[in-house]
Amino acid sequence: MSIARNDATTSELRHDWLADRWVIIAPQRTERPFDFVHYVDVPNEIVQCPFCWGCESSTPEAVAKYVRADARPSDKWSVRVVPNKFPAVQGRPIISSAADEEPNGSVDRIDLFKRRELNGGHEVIVESPLHLNSISQLALEEVHLVFRAYRDRLRYWLHERKACYAVVFKNVGQDAGASLVHTHSQLIATDLLPPDVLRATERMQLFKQKEDACLFCRMVDDEIQQEDRIVEQTTDFLAFCPFASRLPALITIVPVVHESHFETLDDGKLKQVAWLTHRMVRRIEKCYPQAAYNFVIHTVPGCQEGGEYFHWRLELFPRLTKVAGFEWGSDCYINPLAPEDAAENLRSAGV
Amino acid sequence: MSIARNDATTSELRHDWLADRWVIIAPQRTERPFDFVHYVDVPNEIVQCPFCWGCESSTPEAVAKYVRADARPSDKWSVRVVPNKFPAVQGRPIISSAADEEPNGSVDRIDLFKRRELNGGHEVIVESPLHLNSISQLALEEVHLVFRAYRDRLRYWLHERKACYAVVFKNVGQDAGASLVHTHSQLIATDLLPPDVLRATERMQLFKQKEDACLFCRMVDDEIQQEDRIVEQTTDFLAFCPFASRLPALITIVPVVHESHFETLDDGKLKQVAWLTHRMVRRIEKCYPQAAYNFVIHTVPGCQEGGEYFHWRLELFPRLTKVAGFEWGSDCYINPLAPEDAAENLRSAGV
Repeated sequence: MSIARNDATTSELRHDWLADRWVIIAPQRTERPFDFVHYVDVPNEIVQCPFCWGCESSTPEAVAKYVRADARPSDKWSVRVVPNKFPAVQGRPIISSAADEEPNGSVDRIDLFKRRELNGGHEVIVESPLHLNSISQLALEEVHLVFRAYRDRLRYWLHERKACYAVVFKNVGQDAGASLVHTHSQLIATDLLPPDVLRATERMQLFKQKEDACLFCRMVDDEIQQEDRIVEQTTDFLAFCPFASRLPALITIVPVVHESHFETLDDGKLKQVAWLTHRMVRRIEKCYPQAAYNFVIHTVPGCQEGGEYFHWRLELFPRLTKVAGFEWGSDCYINPLAPEDAAENLRSAGV
Repeated sequence: MSIARNDATTSELRHDWLADRWVIIAPQRTERPFDFVHYVDVPNEIVQCPFCWGCESSTPEAVAKYVRADARPSDKWSVRVVPNKFPAVQGRPIISSAADEEPNGSVDRIDLFKRRELNGGHEVIVESPLHLNSISQLALEEVHLVFRAYRDRLRYWLHERKACYAVVFKNVGQDAGASLVHTHSQLIATDLLPPDVLRATERMQLFKQKEDACLFCRMVDDEIQQEDRIVEQTTDFLAFCPFASRLPALITIVPVVHESHFETLDDGKLKQVAWLTHRMVRRIEKCYPQAAYNFVIHTVPGCQEGGEYFHWRLELFPRLTKVAGFEWGSDCYINPLAPEDAAENLRSAGV
């Protein structure tokens, strides 16, 4: 893995307005010696991959299936959504603010051992009947189907099941938290609004109130003007490396014109996002071969009434660094790759 | 690596009062299939380890040295503190609240590209002249010297150099963010108070104000009464697996009687902490062979006047899980090992 450096020899603090967090950009850290052989994922010899064609009975029954337009009659599915057999979240989600209440408030002494049930759902989006290991290996039409599944399942959980929070995410490679190789994504829906999501909604609301403008609409304008952190642009979407990225080569994809909900995107825009994401994954794979990566789609939480202030976004990041003791103790991240350099690397990668 | 399970088959939310964050305890997740061969660190063939005896000129000059009582005259050092050759932080720390100001407040429009210099220091504590790879391989007297170095260097940065924040941490193994094998720890001092540290200080103050008691003093009492999360106890210190741990087998070591400052510990207590930490590392290595691990010492920040409300603590955790897309998008952690089970595993490990 090659990490380019800019000319800086000392660290710089950059403020991430959305998370209200300072990030340490420290390009000089890439100079340090490294004692270990870099990991490369080695698949275990498994008898049967539960996501492959013909093994459908290894998973719970599909809640949704998608088939390519040019499929043969024998092709039963191209993309398949199933409940996670080992779910982190189960049960029936309802809009609830229980988790946000101050534990036991004024009545008694503070309870340091407060617990409650977690309700929601956990689904797997199997992206191909073939044993491929990255979304970049799919044909564009298949990627469209995957993004249709994201849209449909987010809509189901947020609008029909009234989940407080729902997120689509992807873990590729052991370092990114994947347990299976076969290309797939996941959806988790909960009746809990997680702390970073709550903070992001509060910060977007604060920006709106102070500036009478959307934080990301402003950021898009500024990024287009400054140019140096942009990786690629389509008619309706921008892919860029944010100014205060806490991870190296993190890419954010946002709609250029304000939009709160990923799950109500029309087909045309959905295809554009699918195309752009696919291309960004290929750029990452070109720049950082064999790197694990994640992506996460942040749409407006279900428990935020209206939520017009929210600007949805997709975050995509290779896992080039590890979370070390300093970060665990502080939530302050050291990023050894300046986002301007990351964007330049990614732009130059022929895809 | 074996992760024990409790009887639960569904997830439970637990509230971490200090961080004001819910954690998902999901023991049923350990059942899921795993496609990858688990990594084992393989050292690169390096010509010369910069931390070994005889290679002192590979690092900047030592700022402190400690020698065993029974050392031969030719033993120049047993523990050696040097400025990090590739520092994440440099310069002169002073008490500063610059980083906590609301970026550009009311004057102009909000600046989304705010940056500033980072001042402070970054040191390495080389724990042995021998090429050992864990603190558990040191003799107890050597561990005492390492903890003396922690205490002295924290005192220097916090009290003499007036750093706003200083932290000692240890990364062992590639998964824990280490770049070198040779057993060592690090200290970072900054003029920035990181977000998680700020939040912890605010929560401890809030608890004090609401309950007229210290959060950790209360927690120690409750844990001793409940018993099932305790790993080990000495006269003055308790080692336990906190109720709402976001990582599996995380151990917190705290003074039983209230104490804000690690860096003013007397020699007797310092030796007890060193002994207990050493023992906890050995328990972790016994339960989870070859696992990477971190520890972090949280003492009261320099920029918190007085800070009597603060209770110092050491957090130690093997790296058994990866931070995946869900966690990155939410700061909500899924811990597959109930702390009660972790404590039982760790207690049973013969050390």
